Amino acid sequence: PAAAPAPAHPQSGKKKESKQQLQLKVPKGTKDWADKDMVIREGIFSTLSSLFKRHGGVTIDTPVFELREILAGKYGEDSKLIYDLKDQGGELCSLRYDLTVPFARFVAMNNIQNIKRYHIAKVYRRDQPAMTKGRMREFYQCDFDVAGQYDSMVPDAEVLAILVEGLTNLGIKEFKIKLNHRKILDGIFKVCGVKDEDVRKISSAVDKLDKSPWDAVKKEMVEEKGQTEETADKIGEYVKLNGSLDEVLAILQSKDELTSDESANAGLQDMATLSTYLKAFDVTAHVSFDLSLARGLDYYTGLIYEAVTSASAAPKNASELKAKKKSDDEDASEYVGVGSIAAGGRYDNLVNMFASSSGKKNVSIPCVGVSFGVERIFSLIKARASTDAVKPTATQVFIMAFGGGEGWTGYLPERMTVAKQLWAAGIESEYVYKAKANPRKQFEAAEKSGAKVAVILGKEEYAEGNVRVKRLGPEFANDDGEVVKVEDFVAAVQGKLTEA
Amino acid sequence: PAAAPAPAHPQSGKKKESKQQLQLKVPKGTKDWADKDMVIREGIFSTLSSLFKRHGGVTIDTPVFELREILAGKYGEDSKLIYDLKDQGGELCSLRYDLTVPFARFVAMNNIQNIKRYHIAKVYRRDQPAMTKGRMREFYQCDFDVAGQYDSMVPDAEVLAILVEGLTNLGIKEFKIKLNHRKILDGIFKVCGVKDEDVRKISSAVDKLDKSPWDAVKKEMVEEKGQTEETADKIGEYVKLNGSLDEVLAILQSKDELTSDESANAGLQDMATLSTYLKAFDVTAHVSFDLSLARGLDYYTGLIYEAVTSASAAPKNASELKAKKKSDDEDASEYVGVGSIAAGGRYDNLVNMFASSSGKKNVSIPCVGVSFGVERIFSLIKARASTDAVKPTATQVFIMAFGGGEGWTGYLPERMTVAKQLWAAGIESEYVYKAKANPRKQFEAAEKSGAKVAVILGKEEYAEGNVRVKRLGPEFANDDGEVVKVEDFVAAVQGKLTEA
Repeated sequence: PAAAPAPAHPQSGKKKESKQQLQLKVPKGTKDWADKDMVIREGIFSTLSSLFKRHGGVTIDTPVFELREILAGKYGEDSKLIYDLKDQGGELCSLRYDLTVPFARFVAMNNIQNIKRYHIAKVYRRDQPAMTKGRMREFYQCDFDVAGQYDSMVPDAEVLAILVEGLTNLGIKEFKIKLNHRKILDGIFKVCGVKDEDVRKISSAVDKLDKSPWDAVKKEMVEEKGQTEETADKIGEYVKLNGSLDEVLAILQSKDELTSDESANAGLQDMATLSTYLKAFDVTAHVSFDLSLARGLDYYTGLIYEAVTSASAAPKNASELKAKKKSDDEDASEYVGVGSIAAGGRYDNLVNMFASSSGKKNVSIPCVGVSFGVERIFSLIKARASTDAVKPTATQVFIMAFGGGEGWTGYLPERMTVAKQLWAAGIESEYVYKAKANPRKQFEAAEKSGAKVAVILGKEEYAEGNVRVKRLGPEFANDDGEVVKVEDFVAAVQGKLTEA
Repeated sequence: PAAAPAPAHPQSGKKKESKQQLQLKVPKGTKDWADKDMVIREGIFSTLSSLFKRHGGVTIDTPVFELREILAGKYGEDSKLIYDLKDQGGELCSLRYDLTVPFARFVAMNNIQNIKRYHIAKVYRRDQPAMTKGRMREFYQCDFDVAGQYDSMVPDAEVLAILVEGLTNLGIKEFKIKLNHRKILDGIFKVCGVKDEDVRKISSAVDKLDKSPWDAVKKEMVEEKGQTEETADKIGEYVKLNGSLDEVLAILQSKDELTSDESANAGLQDMATLSTYLKAFDVTAHVSFDLSLARGLDYYTGLIYEAVTSASAAPKNASELKAKKKSDDEDASEYVGVGSIAAGGRYDNLVNMFASSSGKKNVSIPCVGVSFGVERIFSLIKARASTDAVKPTATQVFIMAFGGGEGWTGYLPERMTVAKQLWAAGIESEYVYKAKANPRKQFEAAEKSGAKVAVILGKEEYAEGNVRVKRLGPEFANDDGEVVKVEDFVAAVQGKLTEA
């Protein structure tokens, strides 16, 4: 059956030879993963899942799409980036935007009182991609979250310890974790004169400080978001503050206007408690208290954090590079940074939002978690490390047959039988898929596979019940290997592999 | 922010307390995986990926959605089951229906000449679900495929060996692999009098023989698909044939009408070659040559196969059970079987279909592969085995503090410091997230976690620079453990874990 005709893609900018021609590509903002990249990324998953298990985590898997109403109203201005499924009859569904909302839905739906769960899976955002910076439309998140009633800041501190341990285990040494607290930030807005109903939109403006200078953010507050100059300037003084947790905490604790605000004071007490625990975990060196951190998502209620590296920021001449682009639709890699490589925070109301709006009785299941941005971390590792030593296959043994002349069959069924015995012993083994193959071709295939040992079926040797087991590699070019009885060859292979 | 109002779901049949109420559920035909089920399923993935690596496989990851035109025209009558994404501007995309078509697209797009790849990922089908039988709308496939020009039936035989090895490794002992060959089947249709243009639709009718009796299939051929009684009866004689590969092959080879048909004869030669290789792999006992196997998908061109167990078939009184159902929309678990637990075949034209319809030059990249249906296999394993011994967490050590009276702090930061040292040594460790916790609560939490060893910080002992390391479990109730210096406790823990 022929493929359906391709619809026109005006944005591709390429000439078509024919209207019927198929576009052989993946959807915008997605990519295939293969070869060494895949091995490196699987290594990241394995490092992180060991980490999560080390902290008592259990894993869950939720569907890639959720009922649309589950995702509605959770992501603030970013809701426009959600991918919807087409209405084909039945329920309306959307691809998940993160792993946090599905987790809260899972906890509420199953009446779970407490859980430490990790989840490594893909999420979907219809955002402008920057492929080489690991900013994709389909990308993996690796999340660890703690749900349940616990003493203040205890799980929060462990989640930050996990963040430090995770990045360190992945070989990322230069990173900084910016901390802030929604209750402190909201208290600051209030004492600066922002009305309650304006708090979230002023918070969104502050959230842009990592990309825009203060002047632009101030302008947005005054001209678009209806604040007075005085209010904006006062906010400006506060959000400028950053430094070590204890330093900034001391400054804030000295402000009577803050300590007398109930919400801000509760946040300050949290930060003091957190400081003690972060010292116990010996992670304070990585942490800074940064009042300009706001985080865009609606659901955070307490501590928030973001891990950044020197690659996180956009290049200095970003706006110049952006101006040169012909269309908004192109890859943004040149003029954006990697962004935060991990982030998270506390969200104490999300589970109850699901429970109560579905008609269950009110519950209080506070949550805190962190999400590692695997593709962004991958782009850092890839940019830095040589991948020469990465081997895409696991093959240990290559089985060959040497012979010729009259009556030479190529020993293919015999190679298969040998392979079967190696597989049964758990040994990764291959052979050339040809009835008769010459020795050079077989050695080339063995080298390409990365096998360390060859099992050779020689025409005469095998007829006498023997095979030859030999180390592979240039240093063994003159080593003829060892002739062993067919019934003993698996042990001989295991011996050579142990030496290798 | 409040959740959006729920749309009406007339099919749910439940009364709503309020129109605003959110449905706290996952989309139809999908499920959350958690706890022991998740551990069992991860075990299946791990068994299969080891298997695939043992055979020289490399893994790839493709996007969960493809351009819609990539999937078009590949799945025959089942194309109606494809999930489309909503047109939100930009490209038209659909969720992948299987892993085979994306693999062929990947091979064609990257001009790959040969590859053995495995891929473990979710696929999507808008079919009627039968949840407890592992027939879902979102489900995992575990695929192994070999692409490239090789000697006839060599990769085919290895793929069948992988199928046997995989099911055996998963503990499934009673299974049968039905084999057939598209060229033989097409030859049979031809010699029975089916016109070329009717071959695919007659093949679809034969494909229903696992669910419908011959009479119903014959009726479809004659009344709906325009064949004569005589043609249908003759087809009936052929598709009734099944038995060992060599037996059925001998019968077919004795029919001159078949051996004189070029296509059928090529298929028969393939089957004879295959027989030799399956003997070398010692898997003939699992295999039967079954001429009623047709497989629905359009893209197969040669050998086809399906693995079934006694649970695969629908219950005997299926139609009775089905009649009792109130609506077609319900779960079909009661009246369907598990179906095939693994299946696949040879598809020699799919890569070239992509290459040539995208304007690349023609290529010949023959492929053969197998797909394991993990959820169906899971439902067999789950129905059979006790899961009492499955432990959802990996926790090895629980850290506790015992004390009380004046000045008792609960040693929380101290427990954190101890935990950090254990994590750094790679040891899975937890503690109670409370500043002060009583011993009973801590022992209960330790038991729940499945930890084998406790590290106890006693009020006085710890003040003197010591901790207590103790085995957990009822048989150690009277064992007070060992008091060790704080600087030596990690080694002491490792020692006790080795004993455990």
